Amino acid sequence: MFKVPEHQVAGHIAIDGKLGPLIDDSGRFYKPLQDDGRGSKELNFYKSFSSDIRVPDNIRKFFPVFYGTQLLEASDGSGLLPHIILQDLTSDRLNPSIMDVKIGSRTWYPEASDAYIQKCLEKDRATTTVSLGFRIAGLQIYESKESGFWKPARKEVQSFTVDSVRSVLRKFVSSNVSVGSDVNPDCSFASRVYGGSAGILEQLLELKEWFEDQTLYHFHSCSLLILFDKQSLLEGRTPVAEVKLIDFAHVLEGKGIIDHNFLGGLCSLIKFVSEILSSLKESSIKSGSTES
Amino acid sequence: MFKVPEHQVAGHIAIDGKLGPLIDDSGRFYKPLQDDGRGSKELNFYKSFSSDIRVPDNIRKFFPVFYGTQLLEASDGSGLLPHIILQDLTSDRLNPSIMDVKIGSRTWYPEASDAYIQKCLEKDRATTTVSLGFRIAGLQIYESKESGFWKPARKEVQSFTVDSVRSVLRKFVSSNVSVGSDVNPDCSFASRVYGGSAGILEQLLELKEWFEDQTLYHFHSCSLLILFDKQSLLEGRTPVAEVKLIDFAHVLEGKGIIDHNFLGGLCSLIKFVSEILSSLKESSIKSGSTES
Repeated sequence: MFKVPEHQVAGHIAIDGKLGPLIDDSGRFYKPLQDDGRGSKELNFYKSFSSDIRVPDNIRKFFPVFYGTQLLEASDGSGLLPHIILQDLTSDRLNPSIMDVKIGSRTWYPEASDAYIQKCLEKDRATTTVSLGFRIAGLQIYESKESGFWKPARKEVQSFTVDSVRSVLRKFVSSNVSVGSDVNPDCSFASRVYGGSAGILEQLLELKEWFEDQTLYHFHSCSLLILFDKQSLLEGRTPVAEVKLIDFAHVLEGKGIIDHNFLGGLCSLIKFVSEILSSLKESSIKSGSTES
Repeated sequence: MFKVPEHQVAGHIAIDGKLGPLIDDSGRFYKPLQDDGRGSKELNFYKSFSSDIRVPDNIRKFFPVFYGTQLLEASDGSGLLPHIILQDLTSDRLNPSIMDVKIGSRTWYPEASDAYIQKCLEKDRATTTVSLGFRIAGLQIYESKESGFWKPARKEVQSFTVDSVRSVLRKFVSSNVSVGSDVNPDCSFASRVYGGSAGILEQLLELKEWFEDQTLYHFHSCSLLILFDKQSLLEGRTPVAEVKLIDFAHVLEGKGIIDHNFLGGLCSLIKFVSEILSSLKESSIKSGSTES
């Protein structure tokens, strides 16, 4: 049985007769091949990447598992369409909090048409892409059984400023989040989600090390999905926090050059996350607490 | 006595009645204040930076010393004009080889006018700025007493491709360079100029560490000047190899965000320099030599 992904926070969504990805109960995610060439480019990436022996083992975990393609009834009712079969990144998650962060201070690439470049450039300037080197493309933050998820509408996300992004990165790991509240996010989960040897920051640093060296691929307009089990955390268990790369319709060969556009944006995000962790340490030192 | 700098490889040059910087015999460099606002912006940067206690001591050495301003007869004969007084970076150098590398995959900044952005973008796309995250803006390579310097004309430098840049970075540290030659650069000076604990690579890495963290300044359209005493090297002495940042007419406040544009380009340059050094090691292992 195919259904619409419950935890999709950005991209085309398969509702109201529109074309979008589907999931099944076995933990697989079916992404329809867009017919403007992007679908086949993404498929080519997955094929090339999954058999590329130059990619180190520790880096593969940052990518969804690729299972091939399958003809499926498209969600828009247009009939059979090839879909890319991927790992459903949220299938084992209970009430996950998720951020989709599009990395890079430009989403276009040199070989693109002038019209495409101008279109992207306009959006890059209108969002935090140019200023921060990344933009939040979508998110959901699970609050509680009573209030459910905070999942701002696309329009709201697109209008995020530098200050909104700073605030969202804090809210993402805070216990006192609620819609419309002006409370200063307490970041009480930061050390367990962003920090620690298996936390988000360590994973971002591991990716960064690869990006400083790899000249295989240039990941234009790719996103980092950052997610963790908010439910586990609320119940006192250790949340599994994960970083995954998604959306490869605009990946090009690196041709011996590092992906400085992705790397720069990644370093900017790392700095924001680090600052949240170090502000915790400072406040726990000030308050005389030994816990962070 | 003021004179035209002998070793200037990029920017406005004070010849043929044009406005450009001057030097004197005491090791000072006088840069005229451009009256379109850029001069005063650069002056403001030097004033702010030189008294900014947040800048670590080990980072100051990458910047020219700032001595204030002075009214001087402008080189274009237009009369008295304020000049920024800086350290002349080449005053102690005998036949230095020099590269001016403009860092960043964009030279414009979000706050600029649309017309300015389009003008910069066009040049960024026409050069290696977008593809490499940096472009060579000028260079001179000292060859020998007989052949003097290889100093390609501005037009030639502006047409450098990715392959030209790769080749120039090798020629810069080779003994078999000569104009128009198709010989594969031997990189025989690479380990003494790029490598070693005081070499160019170590300096670039030290700068990189600061750029991963600093959120004080965004260095748009800045250059790294990379230089060493070719004469010393040819005479068997250890060359002093230096990295300096120059050209601060487009520096803006960082406002809590790292300069991901500069950092990305810097990492790309570092990768090129590292590869030259590692290719040396590989070839010395292959040839059974212990020297690189």
